Amino acid sequence: MTSTSNRIWLVERPVVGEYSPDCLRLVERPIPEPRDGEVLVRTRLVSIDPTTRNWLTLDPAKQYLPFGIGDPALTVNIGVVIESKREGFAEGDLVRGHWGMGDYDIAEPTTLERLEPSDVPDEAHIAAFSHVGRAAAGGLLWAAGLREGDTVVVSGAAGATGSIATQIAKSKGHRVIAIAGGPDKTAYCRSIGADDTIDYRSEDVESRLRELVPDGIDVYFDNVGGPILDAVLANMAVGCRIAICGVMSQYQVERPEDAYGVRNLSNMLWKRATIRGFVVPDPGPERLAEYDALLRELYTSGKLTVRSHVLDGLENAAAAVGINYAGTNEGKLMVRVAAD
Amino acid sequence: MTSTSNRIWLVERPVVGEYSPDCLRLVERPIPEPRDGEVLVRTRLVSIDPTTRNWLTLDPAKQYLPFGIGDPALTVNIGVVIESKREGFAEGDLVRGHWGMGDYDIAEPTTLERLEPSDVPDEAHIAAFSHVGRAAAGGLLWAAGLREGDTVVVSGAAGATGSIATQIAKSKGHRVIAIAGGPDKTAYCRSIGADDTIDYRSEDVESRLRELVPDGIDVYFDNVGGPILDAVLANMAVGCRIAICGVMSQYQVERPEDAYGVRNLSNMLWKRATIRGFVVPDPGPERLAEYDALLRELYTSGKLTVRSHVLDGLENAAAAVGINYAGTNEGKLMVRVAAD
Repeated sequence: MTSTSNRIWLVERPVVGEYSPDCLRLVERPIPEPRDGEVLVRTRLVSIDPTTRNWLTLDPAKQYLPFGIGDPALTVNIGVVIESKREGFAEGDLVRGHWGMGDYDIAEPTTLERLEPSDVPDEAHIAAFSHVGRAAAGGLLWAAGLREGDTVVVSGAAGATGSIATQIAKSKGHRVIAIAGGPDKTAYCRSIGADDTIDYRSEDVESRLRELVPDGIDVYFDNVGGPILDAVLANMAVGCRIAICGVMSQYQVERPEDAYGVRNLSNMLWKRATIRGFVVPDPGPERLAEYDALLRELYTSGKLTVRSHVLDGLENAAAAVGINYAGTNEGKLMVRVAAD
Repeated sequence: MTSTSNRIWLVERPVVGEYSPDCLRLVERPIPEPRDGEVLVRTRLVSIDPTTRNWLTLDPAKQYLPFGIGDPALTVNIGVVIESKREGFAEGDLVRGHWGMGDYDIAEPTTLERLEPSDVPDEAHIAAFSHVGRAAAGGLLWAAGLREGDTVVVSGAAGATGSIATQIAKSKGHRVIAIAGGPDKTAYCRSIGADDTIDYRSEDVESRLRELVPDGIDVYFDNVGGPILDAVLANMAVGCRIAICGVMSQYQVERPEDAYGVRNLSNMLWKRATIRGFVVPDPGPERLAEYDALLRELYTSGKLTVRSHVLDGLENAAAAVGINYAGTNEGKLMVRVAAD
């Protein structure tokens, strides 16, 4: 071990409505000792996802793994095994998994994956090959059942998941309409191959979709919910399939009665459409392995560009959770805790 | 031929918003002559469905077969072949299919089915074995993928389709919560086997569902959309599947901005839920044949009760379309045009 100092973010209170970093508290506590079956890891990178906020609501329905007040805030991380009492993991292994947002923690064993020594930087193990890339592939290929010739709309298309969904669809020859907020983000969407873009901050999404896709949308990869989902529901082709990967526009709504009311849902009948909400593991291990291979192939052949927005220092992690909601990050948000 | 008089309802203007019978006009015109490939039928029963109104909007997205102003209003009917110039159909055959709401018309050939001489009354060929029963079976078994142990909620459960969906689910051993409007309708739902009922006119559906199904709803057969769908979305189990068979509460909404805004759609992500809109033919001919066999078996063995609400006289057909929306019919609404 290189240090006995261990800083870790504990949950101070559940998030309700708009995220505020004071729901977390950075404390010093001893490096834990792994018991049989456990693995102690030192954190290199912490992935800060929109859903990190949702896990911090402490609502079991919104947590990937249960944790409560006073517990370390769980995130997806990249790190190095310091001590392993678990078969399959050894000191020095580079791993990804869920553990507390701190210098050191015991990893949640069921989530732990050893990352083979590879030629990609740590950042790509978060931004391309982790839950982010798997969500993009699973949403398009599994939840929405992408078929040849489908016209695809992606929202949050400049974001971590949306930009990968856009590129997977383009790599398979689909027409992609990318929806994002502001000219920089729509320009980025075009740079990664989107055929058309809609800036939801300055354009009317429903009428722009009507112009761009008069024959209707076949597949919608939804990261945002709310009014953009409603605009898509008004512009579906018969047999449209919608994969709900995220509901970014609604996460911070505090009272159910303040949630956006979706008015065009009746079109699902006329268009014999399907909406499916999903989380990363839903397609099952076999398909996820296929998606990993696809993402690797696209990345290696230069057909998958990912951007990382790295903040340095564990002390910035709590504030970082709010950055995804401010929308000021450019690329997959993560916090570097240690360089090696 | 027994008559040369032919009355038929023609479309006078498209329905917009609330249905009014003056969108149709009853005229006398000669009995048409079938050309090669065509079949002339004499109508015995006209099925009046909630969606009859939707076809009369003349919106191609809402019509099963296209027709316009001045055309006969198409409905699903039972009748007798008067003259056939189509292989497979002969004079005297009892048939079901789409043709104009009148004494005589040329049937839409692709919709025509010969009903084998059978021991069931004409009414059952509409109320149990037609699009009604197929919608109930297809919604539950195909669109919602009913699985062993699922807890099922049905809305419009005292209605033609909902009551069959309720009985199919009960015949397969499921717990069924039936939602209907008023004490007579909920009593009927209990009489056909519903385990619990909710009267949406006098009870808060969302909180009643929470009490009755604390572990969440697995399958929802939706005939109504709107606030009842929203209440179900707030009470889903993980993996919930919703089949949208109808959107009765929203059909008569004139302006899109007046449609009910569904607020709990975000739960689809947390519950990894699926919503599928469907129409009767979607499951495909093989499955539909299975559903016909299932319905026949349930009917023959006394496990499927259907009620018919028969109005006598073609002259009542236009007004009848509004009765489904008033909700005053008891059982599948139909109009008897001729007794034989």
